[in-house]
Amino acid sequence: MSRFWSPLVHSLTPYVPGEQPKLADLVKLNTNELPCGPSPRALAAIKAAADDTLRLYPDPEALALRTALGARVGLPADHVFVGNGSDEVLAHAFQAFFSHGEAVLFPDVTYSFYKVYCGLYALPYRLVPLDAGMKLVVDDYAGPCGGVVIANPNAPTGTALGLEDIRRLLALHPDRVVLVDEAYVDFGAESAAALVRDYPNLLVVQTFSKSRALAGLRVGFAFGQPELIEGLTRVKDSFNSYPLDRLAQAGALASVEDEAWFTSAVAAVVQARGVLAQGLEGLGFTVLPSAANFVYTRHSGHDAAELAAQLRARAIIVRHLKGDRTAQWLRITVGTDAQCAALLSALRDILHRVS
Amino acid sequence: MSRFWSPLVHSLTPYVPGEQPKLADLVKLNTNELPCGPSPRALAAIKAAADDTLRLYPDPEALALRTALGARVGLPADHVFVGNGSDEVLAHAFQAFFSHGEAVLFPDVTYSFYKVYCGLYALPYRLVPLDAGMKLVVDDYAGPCGGVVIANPNAPTGTALGLEDIRRLLALHPDRVVLVDEAYVDFGAESAAALVRDYPNLLVVQTFSKSRALAGLRVGFAFGQPELIEGLTRVKDSFNSYPLDRLAQAGALASVEDEAWFTSAVAAVVQARGVLAQGLEGLGFTVLPSAANFVYTRHSGHDAAELAAQLRARAIIVRHLKGDRTAQWLRITVGTDAQCAALLSALRDILHRVS
Repeated sequence: MSRFWSPLVHSLTPYVPGEQPKLADLVKLNTNELPCGPSPRALAAIKAAADDTLRLYPDPEALALRTALGARVGLPADHVFVGNGSDEVLAHAFQAFFSHGEAVLFPDVTYSFYKVYCGLYALPYRLVPLDAGMKLVVDDYAGPCGGVVIANPNAPTGTALGLEDIRRLLALHPDRVVLVDEAYVDFGAESAAALVRDYPNLLVVQTFSKSRALAGLRVGFAFGQPELIEGLTRVKDSFNSYPLDRLAQAGALASVEDEAWFTSAVAAVVQARGVLAQGLEGLGFTVLPSAANFVYTRHSGHDAAELAAQLRARAIIVRHLKGDRTAQWLRITVGTDAQCAALLSALRDILHRVS
Repeated sequence: MSRFWSPLVHSLTPYVPGEQPKLADLVKLNTNELPCGPSPRALAAIKAAADDTLRLYPDPEALALRTALGARVGLPADHVFVGNGSDEVLAHAFQAFFSHGEAVLFPDVTYSFYKVYCGLYALPYRLVPLDAGMKLVVDDYAGPCGGVVIANPNAPTGTALGLEDIRRLLALHPDRVVLVDEAYVDFGAESAAALVRDYPNLLVVQTFSKSRALAGLRVGFAFGQPELIEGLTRVKDSFNSYPLDRLAQAGALASVEDEAWFTSAVAAVVQARGVLAQGLEGLGFTVLPSAANFVYTRHSGHDAAELAAQLRARAIIVRHLKGDRTAQWLRITVGTDAQCAALLSALRDILHRVS
């Protein structure tokens, strides 16, 4: 508590990101980074941009990057917004679109930053429970609201809705923004970017942090009709004119242009995910069908927190979230084949000792 | 106007940054970038960081950078906050510290983003006029308020207060945060960082965009007692956990460690500023005493907007701000010797033709 703080600051419950340990030699399967490095073309573009032009401000509109991102899904640049990681894009969206005096709706089990944004912008919200099988039920989102936010695929569950469900959700709220957070979409779900031209209330948010292996570069983006992009831009230009530095713009642009790297990196994750899921099931785990670069899993005979602690003792970090509905689950990033094998081997050992 | 926008968004008047023209061969003296490139050690550090580790999230606390920044002014890391450019740091500070139901005070002629932040966070504010000589009068800031913001040196005027005046300002408002925006301090003013240990209500904000020649990298920072740093951190962690990418952290750290480059770069600007000011005075301009990397100047016989337009026709861009008190002034960045000479030559030509 501080007499200097604005009253709101006292009430904030900040987001706690997954641990970024500084130790080497850890099997780090807790924050859903890709196991391989980014496109070599992205690295080359960054190195080329690291010159005396860094003395100059970047393009505040990031026009080249927005144009390339839009072209990839058949949208012009005025349908594209970029920000300093999708977290910043999400923050601006919450402020820009959700203050209508009614509760913002999102699942009870989803990205835990959503409720933090509501705290930051003093927005009421209502958690809509996933069903017993951890699936999102579109009809539960009917009725007056300030807006809807879903992650698709959802995190930490990894399950995805199809576009027909997204259409139904959009039709429920023609006068409210439906934000579809597609941080993990490239690993197996359909992108709602294909619906942007049909739905003025749709905002689709994606990131370079997962499928582009550029979590360290901080680039996120959104697709929407110009009315929504303008709303985001008004907030952005009232906050920070230049959110994306020159290196991030250059690296992200080169990454978008390297479709071959992208296809291959995503395919490797999908392949490894299947092997990991099968391995876990072989050890008696339940694994939700995942369209992401992680699996969500539980074991009926073993406490998840205890498993996470035992793994950590073996230098393997996975994500365990507290909370009534999540305490018995582990979210495990799909790592390299060797990392997945190390995880399975450690779990086999732990289960053997305990039972 | 949009039915989707939060009501606040309709009322925003976003900041308009100085033009970033994409044309080459311009003499660009409008956004106060340094005329030379950044420290070669910063560029080397960025290139070294452009590797496969970009797949990993950056350190959300930027601890190495904060430690180095603090060490330079004798403060530990818990007295240091970093953000994606000083604009982001300022935005967080306005939200974190200024919502107390009373007007935030800042000069009528200063960085125009301050009133934009007030719009974004629905903060009342009151403009306190500079005196007839464009100087800040500390006593004018007495009385109840939500907080005080000054730029020191001020922009666009370039004039600076001494630390005794800053102390008096701090003493006027022991229960309110006094934010001293030192974007330009390295070019000739005293930093209030030296006062941080004595004043719990002082927040000092600086940037890598000017004296470090890294406007393209987007790194800003603040010094304050841990109570204030914690307030900023609570807001930051409710907005974006990872505002500084890996490349920015690496480049900024190497820049801080290159004191020789820094000293030399700043000295070159100070030297060139003197020559530029003298040249302008030789043409009949009034030049305010500048402690920044720009000069603020007017000519009693010539309209400033017209001069700016004539310069632009000669491919020289300076900053002209509208408004009652600023319309007759030009803010001119101190460029290279050649750029300053080109500016003076062009002005000589323009004045000669008009008169």
